[in-house]
Amino acid sequence: MDAVPDANGGEDDVDEGVRVDLNADAGESFGAWPMGADTRLFPALSSVNVACGFHAGDPATMLRTVRLAREHGVAIGAHPGYPDLVGFGRRDMAVDPEQVHADVLYQLGALSGILRAEGLALHHVKPHGALHHRVTQDEAAADAVARAIRDVSADVPFVVLGGPGGTVMQQAAQAHGLRTIREAFPDRAYLASGTLAPRTMPGALVHDPDEVAARAVAMVTRGEVPAVDGGSTRVEAETLCIHGDGPRAPDIAAAVREALEGAGVEVRAHGGVDV
Amino acid sequence: MDAVPDANGGEDDVDEGVRVDLNADAGESFGAWPMGADTRLFPALSSVNVACGFHAGDPATMLRTVRLAREHGVAIGAHPGYPDLVGFGRRDMAVDPEQVHADVLYQLGALSGILRAEGLALHHVKPHGALHHRVTQDEAAADAVARAIRDVSADVPFVVLGGPGGTVMQQAAQAHGLRTIREAFPDRAYLASGTLAPRTMPGALVHDPDEVAARAVAMVTRGEVPAVDGGSTRVEAETLCIHGDGPRAPDIAAAVREALEGAGVEVRAHGGVDV
Amino acid sequence: MDAVPDANGGEDDVDEGVRVDLNADAGESFGAWPMGADTRLFPALSSVNVACGFHAGDPATMLRTVRLAREHGVAIGAHPGYPDLVGFGRRDMAVDPEQVHADVLYQLGALSGILRAEGLALHHVKPHGALHHRVTQDEAAADAVARAIRDVSADVPFVVLGGPGGTVMQQAAQAHGLRTIREAFPDRAYLASGTLAPRTMPGALVHDPDEVAARAVAMVTRGEVPAVDGGSTRVEAETLCIHGDGPRAPDIAAAVREALEGAGVEVRAHGGVDV
Amino acid sequence: MDAVPDANGGEDDVDEGVRVDLNADAGESFGAWPMGADTRLFPALSSVNVACGFHAGDPATMLRTVRLAREHGVAIGAHPGYPDLVGFGRRDMAVDPEQVHADVLYQLGALSGILRAEGLALHHVKPHGALHHRVTQDEAAADAVARAIRDVSADVPFVVLGGPGGTVMQQAAQAHGLRTIREAFPDRAYLASGTLAPRTMPGALVHDPDEVAARAVAMVTRGEVPAVDGGSTRVEAETLCIHGDGPRAPDIAAAVREALEGAGVEVRAHGGVDV
Repeated sequence: MDAVPDANGGEDDVDEGVRVDLNADAGESFGAWPMGADTRLFPALSSVNVACGFHAGDPATMLRTVRLAREHGVAIGAHPGYPDLVGFGRRDMAVDPEQVHADVLYQLGALSGILRAEGLALHHVKPHGALHHRVTQDEAAADAVARAIRDVSADVPFVVLGGPGGTVMQQAAQAHGLRTIREAFPDRAYLASGTLAPRTMPGALVHDPDEVAARAVAMVTRGEVPAVDGGSTRVEAETLCIHGDGPRAPDIAAAVREALEGAGVEVRAHGGVDV
Repeated sequence: MDAVPDANGGEDDVDEGVRVDLNADAGESFGAWPMGADTRLFPALSSVNVACGFHAGDPATMLRTVRLAREHGVAIGAHPGYPDLVGFGRRDMAVDPEQVHADVLYQLGALSGILRAEGLALHHVKPHGALHHRVTQDEAAADAVARAIRDVSADVPFVVLGGPGGTVMQQAAQAHGLRTIREAFPDRAYLASGTLAPRTMPGALVHDPDEVAARAVAMVTRGEVPAVDGGSTRVEAETLCIHGDGPRAPDIAAAVREALEGAGVEVRAHGGVDV
Repeated sequence: MDAVPDANGGEDDVDEGVRVDLNADAGESFGAWPMGADTRLFPALSSVNVACGFHAGDPATMLRTVRLAREHGVAIGAHPGYPDLVGFGRRDMAVDPEQVHADVLYQLGALSGILRAEGLALHHVKPHGALHHRVTQDEAAADAVARAIRDVSADVPFVVLGGPGGTVMQQAAQAHGLRTIREAFPDRAYLASGTLAPRTMPGALVHDPDEVAARAVAMVTRGEVPAVDGGSTRVEAETLCIHGDGPRAPDIAAAVREALEGAGVEVRAHGGVDV
Repeated sequence: MDAVPDANGGEDDVDEGVRVDLNADAGESFGAWPMGADTRLFPALSSVNVACGFHAGDPATMLRTVRLAREHGVAIGAHPGYPDLVGFGRRDMAVDPEQVHADVLYQLGALSGILRAEGLALHHVKPHGALHHRVTQDEAAADAVARAIRDVSADVPFVVLGGPGGTVMQQAAQAHGLRTIREAFPDRAYLASGTLAPRTMPGALVHDPDEVAARAVAMVTRGEVPAVDGGSTRVEAETLCIHGDGPRAPDIAAAVREALEGAGVEVRAHGGVDV
């Protein structure tokens, strides 16, 4: 069987069957403004990335999101972003690496405080938006994020972009002794080179739940996916990301989970974190 | 000898001599705006209350403040406030108790994350400004803060106003099983009733370093201080607060420390936190 | 006919028929977070109160809202609030009157700049949320708001709560020579005393579009409305407010407008502002 | 005489003597955090650039700054920046040009509202920090700022970097029919090419008041200044900027003004704005 090797190894992985984590961003409301469909999305997921107050999320939203995730047995990771609320953390900012380090530490700590109040621990870290984009390209920023994760806990894995696009993140994780969880995007087109197709390319986004589900199964069971520019490409998929912001997101998440389980894939979070 | 009893008890307190903690607010800069005189103040202190980003402080300032405190062997507490940067947390806000709970959890967690990065632990919690004022009067808000402290760690003490003015805070601490550190203000006038004189009363603020120092010694060694309305009043002083925002604050802190040590009082932080 | 006297008088009011303004809050989105149903609501309205960035609204949202209002021929007023984004300006804050004055000036100026870019002028001012509540009770705050309006333009009317609940606002407007537009709420229950029923009272909120519409017609054509505690009460209704945040808001607004026009009431904004 | 030609021309400039405007950034305090030395700096200046709340300044600070400027007869311009308080607007942000347009409109409007309350009008606009840097290089951003100025008032001049470094700003101003005020920096070194020397180059910053003053006189009376890489370079100096953030800023401003006046140069703001 063509299972993707599990980078996280260890004694909790006695089951040799194929498995994958299914994640989505969550807790993206802010104050009086709701966003996303957390209550409908969580039943299909095995982990979530919770906004930490800089680009979205406020303390009450974070606490509510953590409680909801616990009810659904979903592992909780941090989704730190740039301090840009009005821009939703989607605008690149020339933040000095030392500030990135401090900003991420602050956000990881804030979420960890809320998790501790609920008897939970931080499961993973995945940067958001423009900060995520930057750490795929900027070694100093990637190092700053990896260092912040290690500073909070060397046991918390860094969710990195699988494939050649994730090299900078992967190297930063390695430099600080962090485990990684390699991520793939079944609703995004890939190039034959193994990198994500630019969003501006026709067909870059896949909207049909069944097609996303089929791609998810291919990614996990065969370790590859059709490339938008012809042929297919290898994909490392320890976790699959479902974009939670579209109107059909809950349908897509449910379809992906059902298809994966129908193909004999176990959907569960990585690592030994007890949630 | 007239030592104030130590509410924190425990096996680390083998020394029966008189001692007191000397605290001040710190880390109140924000971004490009400096505030306070941390580098000149810290040598005289045994603990500091660090702003957590809501009324002052930003992640880089917090990290820098924590490192400075560690250099000086000063214990580090959290100083959570209302989410009111432009008002410096000094304006009362009708924040729902559940939001107070979440806001304080968030701030304690954020500082704890930064402390953990530096190998330190949270020493105490003391609310700031209008939130501090509210928790001396509003049982639901005091309960929300005490609950947040307990949620993060039941070992972290709650700095409460000593004397009759602190009853609401003390009861909230007790309800959640928290240790307390009772605080007195040598640069503030007291009424014979044991409460602080209103700031609008003539003589409410003491500015002369020698006079503040003499009051500090009286508070700690005799457990009392002259009252502004005649006679004297009992004062519980497990920690003394030095207001760090005046131009003479470093002089006052140094004078207080020198006078205390000259009177045989040991100045050190409470509890067994290793800093 | 029992027309409500028009406080705004003047040569543009040659039509002696019954008329009323129909307003709603608008532009309450923030960055990536949508709120409200402006595009569906505006066709039924004659004026809107646009959030100015302190409790909701950001510059791009404000500009988009102003353009939408112009397309619909809807007059544009300012809806200034407390600087409390996460609390949506709904939490009372102990803001000093001089700060209220400066905060409101700032917000009125900001919206006026955007209006000027679109060739429009500011039509009215109506405070939001907790600031609105405060100016119905706190003379210094009401004075600060009225002063800010006069400072920007003495020709811009102050929308005040009609009836006995609006006395403080009305006096502040008068003290600064401002015209007023008296406001009534057809979807809120009134007490026989003429004040709004507390929101916690059963029946305080009216949800049925037809009932709201009938109450609106009664308010405008007869100057009275049934009281929730028996009998009826006089209501001054130069403008009727439709709460735009409920799921049925567009239906309610459309029903009110249709009923008013069916009863021969002209729905249009007050004053000579050319929009 | 070698006077720099006055780009603003027009009937208010009947005096053919040499003159120049002397400007500095102002109103950069925020809430409880003071910054700068406005009260000591203003006596030497003829105009100021007031922060508008996005990178610094809050409404009460803006109002206080405007009143102080009026007392000193100093013309008041707007200093809009990126929405980045913690970064003081010094970090580049990938803000979409339409957002830049709306953000600048908002800030110009806000300051204009405060000016109107004091019976004053907006004198000029000069972008701050990273936004200023961007509009020297990014045509779409420069166009967005120029458009916002024109939208508020086509009579308000755009302060542009003099010389070849200001070409992008100058073209944007021209495209929207705006007058310009060309700016030079007597405390910054210039290259022979006419552009500012990079801040990292040795000697890039001039700190000695007498030297800055001599450079200012050379810039205004001879239209040139020694270049740091040899020879001299032409400089267009309709306004000279004094950096207000150094400890010697008031001394530098006073020295520059005294030297200019001693050389027969009139120091006054441009245009016919009555302040």
